Amino acid sequence: MDTIGFIGAGVMGASMVRNLLKAGYPVYLHTRTRAKAEPLLAEGASWTDSPAAVAEAADVIITIIGYPKDVEAVYLGEGGLVATARSGSLLIDMTTSSPALARRIAEVAAARGIDVLDAPVSGGDIGAREGTLTIMAGGEKEAFERARPVFEVLGKSIRRLGGAGAGQLTKMANQIAVAASTLGAAEALAFARSAGLDVQAVLDTIGGGAAASWSLSKLGPRMVAGDFAPGFYAKHLLKDLGIALESAREMGMSLPGLELAQSLYDAMVRDGFGEQGTQGIYHRLVGK
Amino acid sequence: MDTIGFIGAGVMGASMVRNLLKAGYPVYLHTRTRAKAEPLLAEGASWTDSPAAVAEAADVIITIIGYPKDVEAVYLGEGGLVATARSGSLLIDMTTSSPALARRIAEVAAARGIDVLDAPVSGGDIGAREGTLTIMAGGEKEAFERARPVFEVLGKSIRRLGGAGAGQLTKMANQIAVAASTLGAAEALAFARSAGLDVQAVLDTIGGGAAASWSLSKLGPRMVAGDFAPGFYAKHLLKDLGIALESAREMGMSLPGLELAQSLYDAMVRDGFGEQGTQGIYHRLVGK
Repeated sequence: MDTIGFIGAGVMGASMVRNLLKAGYPVYLHTRTRAKAEPLLAEGASWTDSPAAVAEAADVIITIIGYPKDVEAVYLGEGGLVATARSGSLLIDMTTSSPALARRIAEVAAARGIDVLDAPVSGGDIGAREGTLTIMAGGEKEAFERARPVFEVLGKSIRRLGGAGAGQLTKMANQIAVAASTLGAAEALAFARSAGLDVQAVLDTIGGGAAASWSLSKLGPRMVAGDFAPGFYAKHLLKDLGIALESAREMGMSLPGLELAQSLYDAMVRDGFGEQGTQGIYHRLVGK
Repeated sequence: MDTIGFIGAGVMGASMVRNLLKAGYPVYLHTRTRAKAEPLLAEGASWTDSPAAVAEAADVIITIIGYPKDVEAVYLGEGGLVATARSGSLLIDMTTSSPALARRIAEVAAARGIDVLDAPVSGGDIGAREGTLTIMAGGEKEAFERARPVFEVLGKSIRRLGGAGAGQLTKMANQIAVAASTLGAAEALAFARSAGLDVQAVLDTIGGGAAASWSLSKLGPRMVAGDFAPGFYAKHLLKDLGIALESAREMGMSLPGLELAQSLYDAMVRDGFGEQGTQGIYHRLVGK
């Protein structure tokens, strides 16, 4: 059984560490703010002071840490994982991050004999807690097979979509569809509300046909109830859409729906509502 | 059992007439082009020469006929239903049409002692054939209750959403969500394809989570297969989005996702692809 290094203890990471501990893996944990790690240390994780210390303690290192700039620092910065990990180590970035950065990390790491996977997830806090995440991986086949037993502790639907960056690209495709259907649900229900209809009745009527979506059935009722508490933060969707947009531009693609969603969530975050859930976009359409 | 008048024998109308005949209703049929009616006449419907002749023959008259301008002509034009129907008749427009027009028809008809419902449907050709349509009705409660036995022959989910126009408004909300999720599915899969991923694998991976939608699971595979045959014509979605946009503007609402979808389908139709299914929008994103 591999020794696991883990960097990041946010909502997702903390649940993932718990599942690894439960499965019997030794886990060496590092976070920028040690306080965030404390509950997990009490449950059996071992503290490490830096990414370099994680690299020294563990064979398989998982990161899930926020923004691409954080990923870049932890992997490619001074004392970062790629510089300090032993040859033969396996590094797995489960952050939703840039496909181009994933490819760059894989390239630099390969030159040092280190395997890398990009493996972002979907399924949210509940999926992380219950170990039912969807894991979208990119990287070499052998690295993926080596990671599989660990992935099976964390997720249910586990797939390798191609070489380095393919996991991130798949996650971007996912977020493009998520943003569009969330915006569509919000506009449909805002329209119904402005028209003076019983919005819940409209939701019940249209939710089962061609308009059906996870967004409409799961976020629609929260929109109607005015419940904008975050399942998934608007600011995080904005981050993802920015990465998707950058990737699309690198490919010379124009995706007008993605551009629109990015600009609407950007305005929402700039206006101070980034800590709302993504369904908060409804609030901005119906006004106050 | 009411005598039914029916105007329109398109894909939807023809199946609806068949179901009414099967349920034992006498059906007096009129269509602009008699040839379209012939198969239904052979199955037991009776031909009538004009809307006025339908109004004379029947107590309950159903229309499903294309565009709002057709609805306006059949209801409010010279020799139209509102002028020629007997007091006590019930007129049901199941065309996807303008909410404002539905209210206008209801108002003029009420002054003549005629009941009117707007009752557009969703569920497509299959729903029409199998009698499993969703029927979204607007109008007086009594008129709705009178129509209910007829609706039960045609549909499965049957709801009155409010007064005149409420059925059309609910259908518009439906189409707003449909257009957004179709565009989202198309952009997500076009992104995956441009990125060189196995698009079917991406579809399988993202289709069951937060990105899930009817559009992604039902239209996504057709996009991937390059099958742009119409389930629902792009030109008809464009019509509906135009009506929705007009309604939104009447309410002083700005719905940027709807505006974008309308403009993209407008360009698709102007370029000569209006006879494709709505999933054809994918083709325009990936180029070729």
